Amino acid sequence: MSQLRVTVWGENVHEQRDAEMMQRIYPDSMHETIAAGLRKNLDDVEVRTATLQDPEHGLTDEVLDATDVLTWWGHAAHADVSDEIVDKVHQRVLAGMGLLVLHSGHFSKIFIKLMGTSCSLQWRDSNDTENVWTVRPDHPIAEGVPHPIRIEGQEMYGEYFDIPQPDELIFVSSFTGGEVFRSGCTWRRGKGKVFYFSPGDQAYPVYHHPDVQRVLANGVRWAAPSVSGNREVPGIVAKPAPRLTTDDFERVRPGVQG
Amino acid sequence: MSQLRVTVWGENVHEQRDAEMMQRIYPDSMHETIAAGLRKNLDDVEVRTATLQDPEHGLTDEVLDATDVLTWWGHAAHADVSDEIVDKVHQRVLAGMGLLVLHSGHFSKIFIKLMGTSCSLQWRDSNDTENVWTVRPDHPIAEGVPHPIRIEGQEMYGEYFDIPQPDELIFVSSFTGGEVFRSGCTWRRGKGKVFYFSPGDQAYPVYHHPDVQRVLANGVRWAAPSVSGNREVPGIVAKPAPRLTTDDFERVRPGVQG
Amino acid sequence: MSQLRVTVWGENVHEQRDAEMMQRIYPDSMHETIAAGLRKNLDDVEVRTATLQDPEHGLTDEVLDATDVLTWWGHAAHADVSDEIVDKVHQRVLAGMGLLVLHSGHFSKIFIKLMGTSCSLQWRDSNDTENVWTVRPDHPIAEGVPHPIRIEGQEMYGEYFDIPQPDELIFVSSFTGGEVFRSGCTWRRGKGKVFYFSPGDQAYPVYHHPDVQRVLANGVRWAAPSVSGNREVPGIVAKPAPRLTTDDFERVRPGVQG
Amino acid sequence: MSQLRVTVWGENVHEQRDAEMMQRIYPDSMHETIAAGLRKNLDDVEVRTATLQDPEHGLTDEVLDATDVLTWWGHAAHADVSDEIVDKVHQRVLAGMGLLVLHSGHFSKIFIKLMGTSCSLQWRDSNDTENVWTVRPDHPIAEGVPHPIRIEGQEMYGEYFDIPQPDELIFVSSFTGGEVFRSGCTWRRGKGKVFYFSPGDQAYPVYHHPDVQRVLANGVRWAAPSVSGNREVPGIVAKPAPRLTTDDFERVRPGVQG
Repeated sequence: MSQLRVTVWGENVHEQRDAEMMQRIYPDSMHETIAAGLRKNLDDVEVRTATLQDPEHGLTDEVLDATDVLTWWGHAAHADVSDEIVDKVHQRVLAGMGLLVLHSGHFSKIFIKLMGTSCSLQWRDSNDTENVWTVRPDHPIAEGVPHPIRIEGQEMYGEYFDIPQPDELIFVSSFTGGEVFRSGCTWRRGKGKVFYFSPGDQAYPVYHHPDVQRVLANGVRWAAPSVSGNREVPGIVAKPAPRLTTDDFERVRPGVQG
Repeated sequence: MSQLRVTVWGENVHEQRDAEMMQRIYPDSMHETIAAGLRKNLDDVEVRTATLQDPEHGLTDEVLDATDVLTWWGHAAHADVSDEIVDKVHQRVLAGMGLLVLHSGHFSKIFIKLMGTSCSLQWRDSNDTENVWTVRPDHPIAEGVPHPIRIEGQEMYGEYFDIPQPDELIFVSSFTGGEVFRSGCTWRRGKGKVFYFSPGDQAYPVYHHPDVQRVLANGVRWAAPSVSGNREVPGIVAKPAPRLTTDDFERVRPGVQG
Repeated sequence: MSQLRVTVWGENVHEQRDAEMMQRIYPDSMHETIAAGLRKNLDDVEVRTATLQDPEHGLTDEVLDATDVLTWWGHAAHADVSDEIVDKVHQRVLAGMGLLVLHSGHFSKIFIKLMGTSCSLQWRDSNDTENVWTVRPDHPIAEGVPHPIRIEGQEMYGEYFDIPQPDELIFVSSFTGGEVFRSGCTWRRGKGKVFYFSPGDQAYPVYHHPDVQRVLANGVRWAAPSVSGNREVPGIVAKPAPRLTTDDFERVRPGVQG
Repeated sequence: MSQLRVTVWGENVHEQRDAEMMQRIYPDSMHETIAAGLRKNLDDVEVRTATLQDPEHGLTDEVLDATDVLTWWGHAAHADVSDEIVDKVHQRVLAGMGLLVLHSGHFSKIFIKLMGTSCSLQWRDSNDTENVWTVRPDHPIAEGVPHPIRIEGQEMYGEYFDIPQPDELIFVSSFTGGEVFRSGCTWRRGKGKVFYFSPGDQAYPVYHHPDVQRVLANGVRWAAPSVSGNREVPGIVAKPAPRLTTDDFERVRPGVQG
C-alpha cells in the first residue's frame, strides 16, 4: 500500500493570542502535537501541517492533490477561513479525500457545509473528567483503546448536538456534570469519509493523551480513500444509452408475460 | 382515529417472590403501574394487562388480535416464556403490531429474536442517579419531557449494549459512576415498530416517575400501526407478471436506444 | 389538530419560457397543479403558492412564519434564488418546518445546503415508463399507493445519486432503460423533516397522476412539525450548571465504589 | 496481515437432485465454483468448502475456529440445517466472524436469526436480465466492478424484501420485468459483519460471472474481522466499579456547580 499522506490543519490563533497558556500545554503548537501523534502511531505515513495564516491557508491545489486525509482544528477564527478554500476542500472530500474534524471544529465552515445543520451543542469549561465509551467495539477507529478512555481535564460538550444522524456512532462520552455527548461519529459525503471526534481543547493537554492519539491515528487510517478510487467528484451523467433493450426483452422466457 | 388498544405484559415474578419490597415500591404491581401511567397520559386508549402466569401468558390469539401495541417487562423468568407464544408475538410485530421493550426486557426472547444480537450490557445496582438526555428533540417519543430527565435512584446500565445499530437513537443516559447507555432506541421490523427504553427496575420506583410515564405514553402512540395498514406478515410473492413489457419499450422515444 | 399550512414553491420559468408545452401539460402551472392535488387529498389543509418572480421569491418572514411545510420545485433557475432567502428557508427547516424537494429540485440551493453533497445523478429524457416500488410498506408516506406506482412517460433519473445515506429509503424506481433510482428518501435536519421525491417533470403530466398526488399529500402530512414543538433553531447552550453533583454521589450505595 | 481463511458453505442438494442441469451449469458444484472465484480474486487466502451432508454440516468447532469469513448458499433444504449448528455459527458471527449470505440464502435459518424479520420477497424464474447498480461508489465491496454489472440470465428477486434497514446499501438491481431489489446490503451484528448479495441461482451460471466473483471477493475481504479483535461474544459485565468518583468531582473547578 502506498504511503498515506496526511495534512494537519490548525487555526494557530490561540498559539499566538494565548501564548503563555499554550507554551505550558502545547509548546509545539496543537497542530504539531497532533502531527507528532500521528507519526508515532502510524507506519508509512507522511504528515505535514498547515495553518490559517499560510497563503491559501496552506491548502493550495498542490497540497490538496497530495493529501489523502485532512484533519481540521479551529475555534476562534472560523469566519476567517476563506469561502473559496472551503469550497475546494469540500470538493476534495466529495471526490474521496478523508476528513477528520476535531473538537471545536464542529463550528468550522467545512463541517457545517458537509452536515447541513447548525452543529451547535452545550458546553462548559470546568475541568470535567471525560469518559469516552466505545459503542462499536468492532470498528477500526476503536481499536486498541480502553473502554472507557479516561481524560482527566476536559471541556464539557453536551447534547443536543445538532448533527445529522451519524452513519456510524463510534463513541459516546460522559462528563463529571452528568452530561453526555456523541463524541465519535462518522458520515460519508460523496466518496469521502468524515470522522468527527470531540475530545480535545486548547486549554487542556488532551492531544498528548496516548489513547486520544491512538483514536486520531485509527481515524486517519480509516478515512483514507481506497487506493484505486478515482478522485473525481460525482457529477451529472447526461443521456446515457439504455442498459436494457428489446434484446433483453426477447430473451425472457415466453409464457410469463403479463 | 379509532381507540388505541394496548396490552401491558408483566412477568409478575418479583411481585410474588419479593413481595415485601414490591409492596413498598409497586403495591399495584409493575404492570398495573405502567398501565395506569398510560391511561393517565393518553386520551382514547384501552389498556389491559397480561402476565406470565396467565394461560398462554395472557397472549391468546384473541388478545393479540385486539392489541395495537404490546409493552414487555421481564427479568427473572425470560426462559419461562414459551417459544410458541414468542413466535406468535414475533409474527404480530412483523404484521404491524407495535412493541415497547422495557429495561431488563433487553434479555427477553422476543427482543433477542427481533434483534439477532446478544443484547448484553454492563450493569450495577448501586442507586445511581440517571440523567436521560434527548438526542432527537423533534421526535414524538421525546415530546414534553425535560432535557435531561432526572431519575434519582436507578440501576446502572452501561455500554457496550450489544444491539443492532438503532434506526433511531432517541435518548442517551449517564449514571453517577460515569457510565453511558443508549437508553432510547427504535427499530422497524417488518411492518412493526419496536421501541426499547431502559429506565425502570423492580427495585426503584421509576415507573411512577411522571417523565418516564410520559415517555412510555409517547412511545405507545408512536408505535401504533397506521390505521389502514393491513395486518399481514410480509410474505413470498411467487411469479408475479412483469410490470414492464414490450409496450413500454415501444413507447420510448426512438433514437436514444443503445 | 390545527390546520396544516403548506406553501408550494414553483420556479415558474418553464410556464413562461415554454408556454406552449406547459399549456398542454400544466395549463394551471405546475405549482398550482401540485397545490390542487394537496387540497384534494388532505383534509383541513391551507395551501398557498409562491414563485421565484414574487418579491423575496414569495418567501417573506410573514409567509414562512405561517408555513408548516414547504414544497420546492425548480429546474432552470436554481442560481436565481437569492442566497439570503435560501438561508432563511434553511433556518426554518432546522427550526422544524418540513420540506419536500421535488424532481429537479435535487439541484436546488436549499437541498444542496441541507445535504452537503453534489446531489448529481444520471438522466435521460426518453419517455420511459417509471415503476415506483415501496421498500417501506409500513411508512405513512407510502400509504394508499399501489406497489408499484406505474408512471407512463417520465424522464429517467438513475444512480449514482450523490446524496447522504437517507435516514429512511421509502421508494426505489426502475425505468424502461434498466436504470434504478432511490426515488423516495427522507432525512432529518435539525428539528425539520426533509422528503425528496423524484417523479415529476415539466415535460410530462406526472403531477396529475393520482398516486403521485397521494404521495405528495402523505409526504406533506408526514413532514409537518409536531404541534407543540418550539420553532427555534437548535443553538449553543453556554455554561449550564452541572446536572450531577456531590449530592448524587453521596446517594450512591457505599461498598460498590472503585 | 495473516492469511484470510474462508469457508464456503453449500447446501449441495441441487448438485445431487438436479444433476443433469447442474452438470451443465456448475460441473464443479456451486460451492467449488464460488471457492475457485475467491482464490482467483484474492491474494493470500485459504478457502475450504463444507456441505450440508458433512458431519455437523462441515462446521465443526475446529473448522469455525479457523474461519474468518463464512459464505452461505442454501435453497431447498434450509430446514435440514440443525439448530445447534445455526446457534454455533450465530455465536461466531457475534464474536467477529464475517458472513456472506448468497441469493436464496435469504431464507436460511442463520440469516433469519440475525435479521429478526421474515426475509421474504417477490420472485420469478423467467431468464431476466439483471442490472446491478452501485449506490456506494466509494465502498470496498463495489471496487473494480462496472456500473452497472450486467447479468444476462437471472431469476428475478423483487421488493418488498422484508429485511431490517441495511446499515449500508451497496447495490440496487433492476430486472427486465421492471422490478427492483436491494441486492447488496450490509449489517453489523455484534462484532461480526454480514453482507447479503442476491445475484446467483442454481439455474443460471451467475457464479462464473467475473464481476460477481469480484464482488464476492471484495465482500469476503470487507467482512474479515480486524486482526487484533478478540473473538469473544459480547456478554454481560456485572457490577463494574464506577469510573467516576468523588476525586473527579473535587477536581472540577469550583463556582460552576449547580
